[in-house]
Parts: sequence; structure tokens; C-alpha cells
Amino acid sequence: MVSRTEATFFPPIPEAQRWLQGVTFPADRPLINLSQAAPADPPPPAMRAAMAQMMEEASSHSYGPVLGLPGLRAALAVEWSGHYGGTVDPAQVAITAGCNQAFAAVIAATCNEGDEVILPVPWYFNHKMWLDMSGVRAVPLPCGPDLLPDPLAARALITPRTRAIAMVTPNNPCGVEYPAEVVEGFFDLCQDAGIRLIVDETYRDFDSRSGAPHGLLTRDNWDDTLIQLYSFSKVYRLTGHRVGAIIGAAPLLHQIEKFQDTVAICAPSLGQRAAQWGLEHLSQWRSEQRDEILDRRAAIQEHFGPLEAKGWTLLGCGAYFAYVEHPFAEGSAQLAPRLVRDAGVLILPATMFTPEGDTSGDRQFRVAFANSDRAGIAEFARRLAQVEGPLAASQGAE
Amino acid sequence: MVSRTEATFFPPIPEAQRWLQGVTFPADRPLINLSQAAPADPPPPAMRAAMAQMMEEASSHSYGPVLGLPGLRAALAVEWSGHYGGTVDPAQVAITAGCNQAFAAVIAATCNEGDEVILPVPWYFNHKMWLDMSGVRAVPLPCGPDLLPDPLAARALITPRTRAIAMVTPNNPCGVEYPAEVVEGFFDLCQDAGIRLIVDETYRDFDSRSGAPHGLLTRDNWDDTLIQLYSFSKVYRLTGHRVGAIIGAAPLLHQIEKFQDTVAICAPSLGQRAAQWGLEHLSQWRSEQRDEILDRRAAIQEHFGPLEAKGWTLLGCGAYFAYVEHPFAEGSAQLAPRLVRDAGVLILPATMFTPEGDTSGDRQFRVAFANSDRAGIAEFARRLAQVEGPLAASQGAE
Ligand SMILES: Cc1ncc(COP(=O)(O)O)c(C=O)c1O
Ligand SMILES: Cc1ncc(COP(=O)(O)O)c(C=O)c1O
Repeated sequence: MVSRTEATFFPPIPEAQRWLQGVTFPADRPLINLSQAAPADPPPPAMRAAMAQMMEEASSHSYGPVLGLPGLRAALAVEWSGHYGGTVDPAQVAITAGCNQAFAAVIAATCNEGDEVILPVPWYFNHKMWLDMSGVRAVPLPCGPDLLPDPLAARALITPRTRAIAMVTPNNPCGVEYPAEVVEGFFDLCQDAGIRLIVDETYRDFDSRSGAPHGLLTRDNWDDTLIQLYSFSKVYRLTGHRVGAIIGAAPLLHQIEKFQDTVAICAPSLGQRAAQWGLEHLSQWRSEQRDEILDRRAAIQEHFGPLEAKGWTLLGCGAYFAYVEHPFAEGSAQLAPRLVRDAGVLILPATMFTPEGDTSGDRQFRVAFANSDRAGIAEFARRLAQVEGPLAASQGAE
Repeated sequence: MVSRTEATFFPPIPEAQRWLQGVTFPADRPLINLSQAAPADPPPPAMRAAMAQMMEEASSHSYGPVLGLPGLRAALAVEWSGHYGGTVDPAQVAITAGCNQAFAAVIAATCNEGDEVILPVPWYFNHKMWLDMSGVRAVPLPCGPDLLPDPLAARALITPRTRAIAMVTPNNPCGVEYPAEVVEGFFDLCQDAGIRLIVDETYRDFDSRSGAPHGLLTRDNWDDTLIQLYSFSKVYRLTGHRVGAIIGAAPLLHQIEKFQDTVAICAPSLGQRAAQWGLEHLSQWRSEQRDEILDRRAAIQEHFGPLEAKGWTLLGCGAYFAYVEHPFAEGSAQLAPRLVRDAGVLILPATMFTPEGDTSGDRQFRVAFANSDRAGIAEFARRLAQVEGPLAASQGAE
């Protein structure tokens, strides 16, 4: 019998890195790497200075409470209550070592061997990987051409083993912002069915809509159904410090304490203190960051014109991501390493976000544009437009 | 059906913290907390200064490679090769966010639902918790009166579902250093049986023996059988920075990359850089730390005299821990909160380290003496000696 890790695939980012091996990029035409959703720059100078100061405080170096520093839990509860227009108590907030761990902890607290969790497709690969490693069946829920999942379609997939539906909004990999009605439709469905709705809001800080993206926190007993996940990695640029959060029912978090104690002991203390500092001091800077990412999104949209003439299609664009369709005959998994060699561009094929045998993945790519600036995005589009090759039948027929 | 987390017990340290609620400690008689194995002080000033400097380097803040920073993997490989007299390649080292996570990753890479792992009893509670949460049966291997496990006894417990034997040396909770023959006897057994030997060496830096504690790294193909785990938390006092390591076969680590990518993405970058700095700069300081802990161990032994007269027995003493037997009629789980109230002392009952129904746990305690100095240890022993109460039948009979 295979082990838990043997039950799943290898992580896509390191796999994609391997395509770079043996390829040299001329100095005047360096690699454009839009494979990973990570801010390119470190946190702002004021935050770095605050962190350097924290080095002299013993609590920055010691184990903290399993579910997080009380100050950070309280600060996030305040932020959350304000933004979502509901009431979140610090006891409904747990801090994890990143948002990936938040998902892992939630699944461990809600599922067991042979259970099922419904995931809209394309999915976030680490969600699928953790379900595989947990012995939980990931039930694919195909999205429509608008890249949105449909609660009615989901209802038909619920079985007695279903424990949750897990979604990402703004979405990774598709870049779409789920409308409030969609998220709320899923909430109603989950409440009805007595299962959990897990909403990964890692990219909430870059939502183009102002105000709350949904009204779920104003619902009575929202925490019987809803579990939100958040990451301090992106807008605060704290990726390497590993801080994320779970917003959910206190008794659920008490169960999660077992997982966190055993797999993490606690989230890194310094990162937690930095996150709290960020919540308390960086609201202006956060809104500038959002403007910047929204401008990069606009740059993708502007530069896509010439690419459309070459047969490419922009399917989704928001948060850190564009989701695009290519015009070539070969599958995206074959095309991706060729883009590295021919165009000096690294982007992930959608086969990394879709179930085996899902043919839509062959035609599509995720472009993590957020860590490139306007100039980089223009050059990226230029390089893609120069790529040649036999076209797909549908394209060739035009 | 219960969830994975519901399948196990609540973490002992937070549970024990709850015994403190509502108890007040006079200023001249503060609580002596010997419940957790954590250094009381932050890293040394030179390390803190180096870490403050690292704040200005972008790589301290960004995601790193899933299996760890190449520099740290290489530095640990050098240290390990030197100390254990074998050859460890950087590709045989993976960095995790702490040694608890190292264990979790190794179990995920070697086991699946319904498999079995043999653990000497008393066990380290997080090992038992992770096996429960993984659907893996923890098979208890009772230690002898010397607190050592016996390979012959273990052989009788191996079944077709057994994937590994996991042990801790120097031991938590018992404080005993496993003799080389014992560890090597287990290696031979595991090699014979085609299973893994997992050796958690979190406390290796405090071993009272000089030189390698066992010769396993000089064996041919050691990495087919042996997996070592290490923590940077203790001697470097980096607890809150979450850095640990796995030393094992490269193909196993390639499997572990899946778990790490999904549950951690990477160990915190700053902590990893600090750990590397420590390996490269703190060898003198490390040996002073070891001397200090060995002196505290001697203090426990010296001060135990008067306690023996009161019916207490010192069963094991080494690394961070003393393992002691109490003379009272009540079980240790009842006695522990009473010690908080009557003696202002917090120590963990052995019931937290033993299977349910194991009666030895009722009589025993773990004392994590390392974060107390000589004066604190003397006062601790004085306070224990003053505790009164009905004696156990075996004691009363004397
Ligand atoms: C949807 C989603 N969830 C979670 C994460 C993990 O973020 P963290 O760095 O907080 O673990 C990411 C990071 O890319 C993500 O895209
Ligand atoms: C035996 C043992 N293994 C692992 C750990 C976890 O250490 P870390 O802080 O590296 O996760 C501890 C900590 O107390 C321990 O005693």
C-alpha cells in the first residue's frame, strides 16, 4: 500500500523550476517568471525596522500559544469585523503558519478517511494535494465558461460522506472574484446540507470591489457553516515568515489546536508580531498595494489585444492571476517548457490545476502577473505574441 | 464518524496551563513552571544582532525552497558527518518548521490508514497524537525499569502493517540516554524487518556522552533504514522561529517535499538563516550551553536526596528532563493540579506520556528542569518535599 504522500502528485512549483535547468537566458532577455504567486519585494522599510527592533524582545524568539498571539487574534478580529460588517470575536480567530497550513488544519478537524470535499475546478493544487494525503476524496465541480462554480451543480454532488465545499475567492488560479450571490448561494446550500463552507480569501486585499465581498458574517450563526482562511503572505509581503489565519467557530478551533500543536507547535512568533504590526500600521500602504496590483491587472488587459489577434484568449483576470487560453496544437504541459526555451517565459499549465483527464487544462495557463511591473507585463505579452507553432484544430480552421 | 483531530486527545501543555487559572502565587513565592521543554532565554546577543541585520536582506522575507535553504542543508550535513562519523550529503537533509513537523512529514511519507508504528512507552505525546490523527496505530512498547526499550520485545510486536519504530534519545519524557547498543539493536531489527527506524535527536546537544551517541551513520546504506530528526529550538533557543530537520534518504525526502509544500510551503526563512548562522558561529557557545544543562542535571540529582527520604524516586535524569515517582495515594493526574495550588509547582503527570489504562503513569511525573537554574531547582525540590497527603499503599506499608 502506498503512503499518504505517495497518494498524491509532486508539487507544481518545484516541478516547474526544473524546466529551467540547462536553459540559459541572455542578459538582455532574462527569464520572465510568472509561475509563483509571491510578491517580489520585501516588506516596506518601516516594517523591516520594526521587526529588527523586535529582535531585542524575548517573546519574538519563544514559543507562543498554539492558536496564536492574543494580540494578533484580537487585531484580526477587529479588522475582519470592520471589513465584513459582522462580529468576529478573537476566540473565532486562529493563527497558523501560513494559509496552506490553515486549510490542512481545517480538513483535519472536519474530515476523516473516505470523506469527501467538493472543489470547484480549476482548483488550487495544494488543496487537492492535502485532500489526497488525508485520504479524503476531492470531488471536482466544473466551473462554467465564466469560471464560476454553480451551487445547483454542487448540490447534485453532495453525498452522505461530503463534509465541506472549499473555494478560493478572489480565485487562484482563475483570477475571478466570486460575486456575493455565488458565495451566499454556496453558504445556503452548505447550511441546508449541514456541511461546511471553506472560503480561502488569501487574495482579499486585492479585490477590485470596495467593501465586503459578501455578507456572510452578518448571518446568524455564520460560524456553524462558514470557515474563512487568510494569508499574511501577500499584501504584507511576509511570505517567508509563514503567517496565516482561520476564522471560524471557537469549538472547531479547539479541535484545530490539536493539529497545530502537533504539526507546528505555533506559528512563528516574529512573523505573528510583524503581522500584528502590519494590521495596526499599514492600512494606507495596503490600499496603495491594492492600487498597484489593480494597475498591473489593467496592464494585462491592455496588452492582451495583440495576443488575441494571435489566437490567445483572456478568460479571467484579477487578484494576482490571469487565466488564459493558448492557440497551439500541443497541450499546455508540453507547451510550458517550450515557452521557457523559446520565449524565456515561465507560466504554469492549467493541467496543474485540473483533474487528470480534464481536457480544458490542455488549452489553458495561469499567469501569476502580480510580481511583475507594467514594463515586465508588456514584455511578457510581446514575447508570447512571438511564439509560433502548429495551431490547434479549432484555431487552424479559422 | 469522527474527524482526524477528534480521533486524538487535547495537547497537554495548554491543558496544564489551564490548571493555573484562578490560582494566585505570592510575589515571594512565584510559580515554578517545569512543564515545558523550552529554553527560558532568547538566543545570544550576537545571534540576535545577526538576525536584526538579516532583516535588510530580501531573502529573509521570501519563500525559500520547499526542503530548505541549500546553505543550511549543507551546513547541517557537515555538522552531522563530523559528529556521527559517517557521510551525510546535503541531499539527505531536509529542513522543516520544527521537529514536530519533521515527525509528521516522515509519518506521512511512510504510512497510510491502518498502518502501525511502534513507540516505546512512556512516549512523546505529539508522536502519539500525530499517529492518531493519521489513522496509524501507535503500538506501545513498554520500557523496562531502566526506562529503556528492548529490541527483542519490539520484534514480537512487528506485524505486516508495521512501517516503523520511532524513538527519542536522549529521551523525552524520561531523560535517559539510550546506549549505542540499544539504538543499534533497533537498527538491526528494523533493517531485518524492512521497516524504518525513526530517531528523534532533539536533545542531542545535551547528551552527557562525548562523541557520537551511536555508530549508525557508519553503516552501509544507513539511509535505507534510519531517519533522524533534529530541532534547532533548544540549544540555539530558536523555539519561536520554528526550524527542525530530517536526515534520511533523498528519495524519501522527495516524497516529503509534497507534505512540506502543502502544510508549510517552506520553513521560515529567517529562522533557517539564523540556524545556519548558529551552526557556523556558535560551536563554543553550544558547548557552554551543554555544560550548563549538565550542571542543572547534577543539581537535580543533588537535591533529590531529601525528596527520597519523603518517598520520591528519581527514575531517569538527562537532557532537559527528570522522570520521578511520587509517594502519594492519588494518581499523578489528580496530584498535578494540587501541586500547583499547594506547592506553586507545575509539572506534567506521566499520564500525559502513557497509554490510557497504563498504571505506571499514575505514579510518575516529568520534570522539565532545563529552564530553571540551580537556585530554582533547589527551591523546586524544597517545595516538593513539603507536600503532604495520604501515601500510596506501597509507601504506607513501609
Ligand atoms: C489560494 C491560496 N491559498 C493559500 C496560499 C498559501 O499562502 P501562505 O503563504 O499563507 O501559506 C496561497 C499561496 O499562494 C494561495 O494562492
Ligand atoms: C522529543 C521532541 N521532539 C520534537 C520536539 C519539537 O521541537 P520543535 O520546536 O523543533 O518543533 C520536542 C519539543 O519539545 C521534543 O521534545
